[in-house]
Amino acid sequence: MRVVDLIRKKRDGYALTPEEIAFLIRGYTRGEIPDYQMAAFLMAVVWRGMTPEETLALTEEMVRSGCTLDWSHLPEAKVDKHSTGGVGDKTSLVLTPIVAAAGVRVPMISGRGLAHTGGTLDKLESIPGFRVQLPVETIRRVVEQVGAVLVGQSEELVPADRKLYALRDVTATVECLPLIVASIMSKKIAEGLDALVLDVKVGNGAFMKTEAEARDLAERLVDVGRRLGKRVRALITDMNQPLGRAIGNALEVIESVETLKGRGPEDLRALSVELAAHMLLLGHRATNLDEARELAERLLQSGAALEKFRQIIEAQGGDPRVVDDYTRLPQARGRWDYRADAEGVVVEAHAERLGLASMLLGAGREDLHSTIDPAVGLVLHKKIGERVARGDALCTLYYNSEERLHRAVEYVRAAFVVGSSAPPPDPLIKAVV
Amino acid sequence: MRVVDLIRKKRDGYALTPEEIAFLIRGYTRGEIPDYQMAAFLMAVVWRGMTPEETLALTEEMVRSGCTLDWSHLPEAKVDKHSTGGVGDKTSLVLTPIVAAAGVRVPMISGRGLAHTGGTLDKLESIPGFRVQLPVETIRRVVEQVGAVLVGQSEELVPADRKLYALRDVTATVECLPLIVASIMSKKIAEGLDALVLDVKVGNGAFMKTEAEARDLAERLVDVGRRLGKRVRALITDMNQPLGRAIGNALEVIESVETLKGRGPEDLRALSVELAAHMLLLGHRATNLDEARELAERLLQSGAALEKFRQIIEAQGGDPRVVDDYTRLPQARGRWDYRADAEGVVVEAHAERLGLASMLLGAGREDLHSTIDPAVGLVLHKKIGERVARGDALCTLYYNSEERLHRAVEYVRAAFVVGSSAPPPDPLIKAVV
Repeated sequence: MRVVDLIRKKRDGYALTPEEIAFLIRGYTRGEIPDYQMAAFLMAVVWRGMTPEETLALTEEMVRSGCTLDWSHLPEAKVDKHSTGGVGDKTSLVLTPIVAAAGVRVPMISGRGLAHTGGTLDKLESIPGFRVQLPVETIRRVVEQVGAVLVGQSEELVPADRKLYALRDVTATVECLPLIVASIMSKKIAEGLDALVLDVKVGNGAFMKTEAEARDLAERLVDVGRRLGKRVRALITDMNQPLGRAIGNALEVIESVETLKGRGPEDLRALSVELAAHMLLLGHRATNLDEARELAERLLQSGAALEKFRQIIEAQGGDPRVVDDYTRLPQARGRWDYRADAEGVVVEAHAERLGLASMLLGAGREDLHSTIDPAVGLVLHKKIGERVARGDALCTLYYNSEERLHRAVEYVRAAFVVGSSAPPPDPLIKAVV
Repeated sequence: MRVVDLIRKKRDGYALTPEEIAFLIRGYTRGEIPDYQMAAFLMAVVWRGMTPEETLALTEEMVRSGCTLDWSHLPEAKVDKHSTGGVGDKTSLVLTPIVAAAGVRVPMISGRGLAHTGGTLDKLESIPGFRVQLPVETIRRVVEQVGAVLVGQSEELVPADRKLYALRDVTATVECLPLIVASIMSKKIAEGLDALVLDVKVGNGAFMKTEAEARDLAERLVDVGRRLGKRVRALITDMNQPLGRAIGNALEVIESVETLKGRGPEDLRALSVELAAHMLLLGHRATNLDEARELAERLLQSGAALEKFRQIIEAQGGDPRVVDDYTRLPQARGRWDYRADAEGVVVEAHAERLGLASMLLGAGREDLHSTIDPAVGLVLHKKIGERVARGDALCTLYYNSEERLHRAVEYVRAAFVVGSSAPPPDPLIKAVV
């Protein structure tokens, strides 16, 4: 088998066999196939796509490139949730303790933020002492003792994905559904899950801009997961405005804890409960979705989920006192209110622009090498459909640099549109696949 | 300017500006842009193509990557011929001495054979002592003194093409018209030509399989040449059967010398004269094509072209006595005749299969690292439309290895078809662009 022949085959629009895909991924991971051949192959895949069988083979082979976690000694279901990324999306921090409190194991491997999107790991790292890079043995121990862990990808899991992603990032081959599907699913499969709930975001703040694209991605993800014997469900959810009101790392931790205390914003609470309910259902903790929702609500109201969050923080080296004392989280030096200059109704609170504003304040990454300021970000006071009077604060910017504040304000200005009448509310959950 | 953005731009189907193409080619030639980014870009070009303006900019920028030959001190026209490659195509050896004998300067930079196609340099190297790699100063001196030179690409000319071609070869990005056009034309422009005649081959033994493809390539080549201020003409010629009767390096040298002596096969003589006539016309040695043909014929018949070939051989270090004594050329140890097993008319003498048979005998390259056996090859005794009796030799194989002979015979068997009636003869010259 010659690499150039496989590149040509894909270039000419043919599907590769599982053996051919295995040859490519093994050779590349081992360093036997050079970056330039893989780059040409990836661009040919962007051009020609991949069949479901090819996507499956790619996913499986990527999983095989490293180790996989083994939870067979734990009788409970192992269930995770994965979001395709958005602005203010902190559901992982809310639903993980809910689901773990119900006795489902949640070995969650999360990512970092890039561009306008936030990342669960960055948020958690704003908690003093919280460690997201743990050795595999520690991950196992935390899941055994606490029921859940929220960590970054380890070196041992799916090394092919790390190597491929770095190459895709510099060769304009990121935006390609089968490659995205294999990247997401290989990491999830390597976690040793029984079931997976996917939150596929759609809207201006999401990777998928249209519902058709989001549905296509959701169906491909579910297809690969089911072919690999996993119980998988995907929710397509709105990302035209931020989820909740806080954007920025410590600010989002506070909002998550508030939600666990029953005082969070309604959309964040509702989506967290809904995703948790699907996880509980797939984890066989309920016989139908209504029962699962009730269980999730009960664990929130009883404080069991909040207590579980404290345990997770402590197990990962963090200071659990932040749950009761938010001043233990990093604090920004300055605050500035962006105010409405006319009365009316909020017509737009553009998720991508607000995410970029947060990034420019220092809460996100302009590129892979940026450092994060955990304290800065935005808190929205008005969202789509809410009435404002002239002079009302639409949002507050938390900043540590005047210069960054000025850059961010430009995006905030462009994000808010106040009009005379409210649009019909966009449903938060658009479809279940 | 970021490379990844230019890859994305081409990936999404947009045309790059000349500045963007210059940025890519300069950066790549200097080693500042890595192979993997160029590989992704090249595959995006295979996918999306290039506009005439992009192809022109690519060609110009590739020329600028190295030095160019300067002949401004010689008053005569500098004219070259380039063939897209075929089987038994030895016109360069015949027409170069004709055209040089007429006082036109021919600084010809040729290539080597690959797969089923032969290469002028390989053929010339079968002449004892003949050197095809000459320093630029020697190239200049030979053209000044003899009027023509037949050499390989020097390190100084178009280094971008060498680097790009090596990458294309291993990334399945060879088969792409704008990249082919820029590769061919950049090398020809760097020769410092005034005019160029292109022989675009079409047929089973050519790179272009259909006349439409060949015409597309011819038009693109002529377009770039003319935009760069050169006088350019392209002939589209048949390559469904080999040109002449000899295939293999020393065997083709003999056939070329025979043609210069007026005893060569008619198709080779005719095409050489026709291409030479176009060169003489573009080189202003004649006022119309008929006059140019007559001049070429006269230089053949007078022996002036043969004498010029002797001079070229001597100037490049070769033994000019081979012209009168073919036993000074490498001789194969064995001969084997492939005979017709029925009477009839030759319907097919498949150029590609006969070229592959010659390659398998050792006359060509299976890959870039193969070594050439100058003595081996085939001589056809029957070509399309010729009558054969049962037992007639269709061709003779010249071999140095029994094992190679057996592999080659399989291809020879598949190459010849003898039927009951002759097809209408395919015209040798199909079009002039």
